[in-house]
Amino acid sequence: MSSIFKKILDGEIPCHRVYEDDHVLAFLDVAPLSRGHTLVIPKQVASSLHELTEESGAALGSALVKVSNAIVKATGATDYNILQNNGKIAGQAVFHVHFHIIPKYDEGDGLGLIWNSSTVSDGEILAKEIQQAL
Amino acid sequence: MSSIFKKILDGEIPCHRVYEDDHVLAFLDVAPLSRGHTLVIPKQVASSLHELTEESGAALGSALVKVSNAIVKATGATDYNILQNNGKIAGQAVFHVHFHIIPKYDEGDGLGLIWNSSTVSDGEILAKEIQQAL
Repeated sequence: MSSIFKKILDGEIPCHRVYEDDHVLAFLDVAPLSRGHTLVIPKQVASSLHELTEESGAALGSALVKVSNAIVKATGATDYNILQNNGKIAGQAVFHVHFHIIPKYDEGDGLGLIWNSSTVSDGEILAKEIQQAL
Repeated sequence: MSSIFKKILDGEIPCHRVYEDDHVLAFLDVAPLSRGHTLVIPKQVASSLHELTEESGAALGSALVKVSNAIVKATGATDYNILQNNGKIAGQAVFHVHFHIIPKYDEGDGLGLIWNSSTVSDGEILAKEIQQAL
């Protein structure tokens, strides 16, 4: 079954489009956390970021710079969060990769973050394990 | 004054490096939200994402795909959040652009999100304003 974002890409469902190129589409979130909350999605169909080609990743990164710049100019909000959730327990609701750009006008609006940090115990070993998996 | 991330780029402060190329460095966060919490930063010195060149943005996007793939393989966590904060009220603490990759092992660990959505009222006008600012 197609996700709602695939249907938007296919023109079956309308959106408020803000940017499009060969690899990427950006449009306003229909349930925004703040004014200007925008989604940037790849045209490649994939659920999680690590499943994308590097070409899609590069196109998304470039579009994030371009679109966030336009959102800052259009909304006047210089502060914003970029968020991309992978998997159900990480808060993903639509299973097609999407980056949120969420303007923050003051402390109380936009995205709220809960931050409980710890310390690295096995950093040297873990860094090597990740390097070896590249 | 150099940020702590510029000092890491310059080799003045050590890090647990997991990936590096001409434009990007990735290393373990010293105060992780979960095991495998990694930072991906551009070598270009800039505080906010919209200030980067599109080349830096593309390199970051490509590296995010590569490094998140390696983190999934090395940690076994298939769920994860990618977060990038711009500006003090958005939670930015180090004023050099950085993307967090934060594995999520279960509901209670990793990044917590507070999500208070509303509805778009002036979507058509706003989308045009952002388009014009591109």
